[in-house]
Amino acid sequence: MVGIIMGSSSDLKVMQEAADMLAELGVSYEIDVVSAHRTPEKMVEYGKTARKRGLKVVIAGAGGAAHLPGMVASLTTLPVIGVPVKSSNSIDGWDSVLSILQMPSGVPVATVALNGARNAGILAAQIVGTFDEKVADRLQAYKEDMKAKVEIMSQEVKNK
Amino acid sequence: MVGIIMGSSSDLKVMQEAADMLAELGVSYEIDVVSAHRTPEKMVEYGKTARKRGLKVVIAGAGGAAHLPGMVASLTTLPVIGVPVKSSNSIDGWDSVLSILQMPSGVPVATVALNGARNAGILAAQIVGTFDEKVADRLQAYKEDMKAKVEIMSQEVKNK
Amino acid sequence: MVGIIMGSSSDLKVMQEAADMLAELGVSYEIDVVSAHRTPEKMVEYGKTARKRGLKVVIAGAGGAAHLPGMVASLTTLPVIGVPVKSSNSIDGWDSVLSILQMPSGVPVATVALNGARNAGILAAQIVGTFDEKVADRLQAYKEDMKAKVEIMSQEVKNK
Amino acid sequence: MVGIIMGSSSDLKVMQEAADMLAELGVSYEIDVVSAHRTPEKMVEYGKTARKRGLKVVIAGAGGAAHLPGMVASLTTLPVIGVPVKSSNSIDGWDSVLSILQMPSGVPVATVALNGARNAGILAAQIVGTFDEKVADRLQAYKEDMKAKVEIMSQEVKNK
Amino acid sequence: MVGIIMGSSSDLKVMQEAADMLAELGVSYEIDVVSAHRTPEKMVEYGKTARKRGLKVVIAGAGGAAHLPGMVASLTTLPVIGVPVKSSNSIDGWDSVLSILQMPSGVPVATVALNGARNAGILAAQIVGTFDEKVADRLQAYKEDMKAKVEIMSQEVKNK
Amino acid sequence: MVGIIMGSSSDLKVMQEAADMLAELGVSYEIDVVSAHRTPEKMVEYGKTARKRGLKVVIAGAGGAAHLPGMVASLTTLPVIGVPVKSSNSIDGWDSVLSILQMPSGVPVATVALNGARNAGILAAQIVGTFDEKVADRLQAYKEDMKAKVEIMSQEVKNK
Amino acid sequence: MVGIIMGSSSDLKVMQEAADMLAELGVSYEIDVVSAHRTPEKMVEYGKTARKRGLKVVIAGAGGAAHLPGMVASLTTLPVIGVPVKSSNSIDGWDSVLSILQMPSGVPVATVALNGARNAGILAAQIVGTFDEKVADRLQAYKEDMKAKVEIMSQEVKNK
Amino acid sequence: MVGIIMGSSSDLKVMQEAADMLAELGVSYEIDVVSAHRTPEKMVEYGKTARKRGLKVVIAGAGGAAHLPGMVASLTTLPVIGVPVKSSNSIDGWDSVLSILQMPSGVPVATVALNGARNAGILAAQIVGTFDEKVADRLQAYKEDMKAKVEIMSQEVKNK
Repeated sequence: MVGIIMGSSSDLKVMQEAADMLAELGVSYEIDVVSAHRTPEKMVEYGKTARKRGLKVVIAGAGGAAHLPGMVASLTTLPVIGVPVKSSNSIDGWDSVLSILQMPSGVPVATVALNGARNAGILAAQIVGTFDEKVADRLQAYKEDMKAKVEIMSQEVKNK
Repeated sequence: MVGIIMGSSSDLKVMQEAADMLAELGVSYEIDVVSAHRTPEKMVEYGKTARKRGLKVVIAGAGGAAHLPGMVASLTTLPVIGVPVKSSNSIDGWDSVLSILQMPSGVPVATVALNGARNAGILAAQIVGTFDEKVADRLQAYKEDMKAKVEIMSQEVKNK
Repeated sequence: MVGIIMGSSSDLKVMQEAADMLAELGVSYEIDVVSAHRTPEKMVEYGKTARKRGLKVVIAGAGGAAHLPGMVASLTTLPVIGVPVKSSNSIDGWDSVLSILQMPSGVPVATVALNGARNAGILAAQIVGTFDEKVADRLQAYKEDMKAKVEIMSQEVKNK
Repeated sequence: MVGIIMGSSSDLKVMQEAADMLAELGVSYEIDVVSAHRTPEKMVEYGKTARKRGLKVVIAGAGGAAHLPGMVASLTTLPVIGVPVKSSNSIDGWDSVLSILQMPSGVPVATVALNGARNAGILAAQIVGTFDEKVADRLQAYKEDMKAKVEIMSQEVKNK
Repeated sequence: MVGIIMGSSSDLKVMQEAADMLAELGVSYEIDVVSAHRTPEKMVEYGKTARKRGLKVVIAGAGGAAHLPGMVASLTTLPVIGVPVKSSNSIDGWDSVLSILQMPSGVPVATVALNGARNAGILAAQIVGTFDEKVADRLQAYKEDMKAKVEIMSQEVKNK
Repeated sequence: MVGIIMGSSSDLKVMQEAADMLAELGVSYEIDVVSAHRTPEKMVEYGKTARKRGLKVVIAGAGGAAHLPGMVASLTTLPVIGVPVKSSNSIDGWDSVLSILQMPSGVPVATVALNGARNAGILAAQIVGTFDEKVADRLQAYKEDMKAKVEIMSQEVKNK
Repeated sequence: MVGIIMGSSSDLKVMQEAADMLAELGVSYEIDVVSAHRTPEKMVEYGKTARKRGLKVVIAGAGGAAHLPGMVASLTTLPVIGVPVKSSNSIDGWDSVLSILQMPSGVPVATVALNGARNAGILAAQIVGTFDEKVADRLQAYKEDMKAKVEIMSQEVKNK
Repeated sequence: MVGIIMGSSSDLKVMQEAADMLAELGVSYEIDVVSAHRTPEKMVEYGKTARKRGLKVVIAGAGGAAHLPGMVASLTTLPVIGVPVKSSNSIDGWDSVLSILQMPSGVPVATVALNGARNAGILAAQIVGTFDEKVADRLQAYKEDMKAKVEIMSQEVKNK
């Protein structure tokens, strides 16, 4: 079970891709809005109970001064994947990237690319796949599928 | 009373300047190490009780993915001043600047310059000075003093 | 009483949010256009008389090489809040952010996020709230309201 | 078993921290130099056989145009953790950060902070800890230990 | 013969300019989609056989964490020209520029401007022109043509 | 007569080069410390009287949030040359560069390179040289001298 | 007489503002397209003859790797004003800003803001105004006019 | 024959690596100081005669606003390799990187990494190797040698 959280429902259009990817790879998930700055106590509760509620990985997306992924990581021993979201008044996304990536020693966040929620879903599945063969097999199939799609592109470009 | 907190004692060499400035301006303060990522619950407690403990302003300094100022701001209605500290593995200070400055709508942090703890002390005194005439007078005297020092520099440079 | 100033009426669409926020929080304000570069003497007058005219805080917004907040801060002992405005020929907003934030030792500007006028309004109210209980209570109510709105988002996202 | 690889032995002074952290958390590891640009075929072999050789996670560190983490991620379904190393002719570390973080859709790299090898070790242990209770317990103990160390700092700073 | 490759058919709208330029300068080329991250083995094969298949230069375009140009350069002794493509979730193009340009010592990539596929075509022709007089002559004619076009602009601007 | 001003005597080690260059080119100058933020009224006086005191050009150097050049430019119709100084807590010099360069429409500052005080001196002499033949001749001689020095370097490198 | 040049007629929409401003200030000018990279010999001729043709100042605008202003400055002792133009494939304008501003010691370019052609016109007039009283008077009038316009904005904002 | 030029003899400590690499790969070269800004006419002469003097490739290194590579490229149809040199007052090297890389359409410069003169030498040899089998063979041997060195590092790291 993967927990997907985000700081605002306005992040959903980006974060939905994580959920879709997990569904495609047959990994169950729950999804919620948890704001570091508006619901700090809900966030603390979420982080502290994540492991006992049976979550294996948390995916947290946020924009601007994005504190949600790092704060949840401070509250659990589960791996936390951070998705920097490019929000409206962002300075080109640098703010969310750096405030998620540059965590101090002791509290890592597994950061993916700007708006990279799809990759967050795949990474969560890869973590699940370290102990669940079936998920690992689906990831392998997904890789073959990507390869096949490139071959189709290759034919199209050559024949153009 | 101003509360000064920092994420690690390694930030003290920068943050001490805030304390010194407040002392110089006759504003009392308390100082502590509170880490957003290593002592999140102490931080929540600190933020939630800040006002009732009689604090008027909180000065929070942190480096890298610097979540302490913004998180404390989420937990209190007091003004929170953030000091971006340039830590060792920082990407030129951009990480701490952006993760303190770019707070989402609803939860401001009054950000000062990189390593600008002295200015954080002055700003805290200015806030105290909005209702405490004596502090306001000392701030005025400090301004005159700075002006006088520039005049001395001016003479030195002219006579060189 | 809070003074809101901006370098040009083209900044009003951003700066109006500061005024609206103050109105919502029951803090009175005055609003004006004061240009550091086109009306430097009006700016000097504004800064020097701000305290005696009864202002408690100044909010100053400007774009590009944004000198208004820092210059007003040099002319008063009141706390000055700077709002970096992303203007048309700005280099992604970096120019206004850095020319407001990076003030030299002795003259702080309380900088908020790029286009963060709403947060400037809240921060000004927090400063007023250090000595005015009613404003502090309204800020607390505003915080609860934000929290409640996140809970509504949470339900929406879960039920989707 | 975690695999730690790096592009050059000059990266070892940074990457050793990942190994030390894993040792401290009781997670076994192997360590090697694998260069994307100088030994591309060894890298392909490493990536393709990683899972069957029993690895659960790969930690890959590299500087400059850092292709090792992303290329290994393209060759395995294991989670790959990327450590951007600040090398000598780096443009302030931006090159390694961006060439590891900004992976295209389909092939994630779990990126940690610049020179953040210690956090890479912790993150790898967190992944192992999703299915190994003992490692999870040691991570919990490590968290308590960090908290205790902050309390010691706190006393020192207060008593100063 | 010049080989043009790109990481995805979505790069074709940029990379087509390289092909058009080569056609205009009378240099033959082949074009294909080869993805570093989705078809790593095809990429290895492409790089290793490039010289014996008679290619003289390879032009490789990619966006984001753009590993294709550098990886191909690691697999061949032919000159490799890298075209940083500004893709959709790019951080303003910095990611593709830096992950192509900042190659470590020993494995150069001849990098051109962001989206500079036309210039990649000209550069490839210049390389061919070092041993093929006819191509060199066409390049000279192209230069004269550009000069003539500036003269037309000059007249237009003067007469406006 | 050229006026050279700087925000602090700590800028003198950079700004002295402007004075030396003017001396070398036979252009008279005066030098002073004028701080935008610590002596705003002296700055206003300086700017407003610059032309009638017989100055032809003002060179102003400052670091961090560098407001001196732009503010003086707002107060005079003389050309103002701005020298961004890389001060100690500067964010790599970007702050002083952008806060001098990005002046709004109507109030230009002639900006030179980071720490480029020597070039500010030359530029001031070029402006004087538009109406003073002797200075123009010295500038021409300076150009020949630079050219001759390159020829000496050329011989050294060739003979190495 | 001011010479206005630009690298391409596509820069005219920006550079026209310099011409308009000079016209408004009663300073004569000529305008032309001179490309550093496509007509290098015309550029050399332009620079070398600028002074004897009676020009007092050159305004040069260019985008991307913008070499025109600096190269013309290398060929004349006249003051050269550089206008960084934000062209289509520019990396947010940083390329043109830095390649104009960061001139080496000995060859200054008076750089104005990104797309700041209007300010280039004013700066050129200020240079002419150092020896031409009438132009200086018009600049003073322009300043008063700007001030008056701010007062109108001020009334509008207050009455809103 | 490869021509190596640089803007100043202070660039020699970086640029010597290009010469050494060419020597190691058995490619002859000439070396000179040619300054775009101090000896523009020598530069024009150098560029215009490069091909007829028998050069096959030009390597040009420069720092700051680095115009030498692009200007030489405008004057010849030979491939020009640009080496961004990190000079003393550089803004972290961004200025030289961008002013070499971001050439406009029609005039490419083959840019290598910051201070990447060794790679410039290899790239020049790769270009020569497109028509000279012996050089191509030496490049292949150099590649094998790098691979062997990594294997030695690999043993060292494993045995540590």
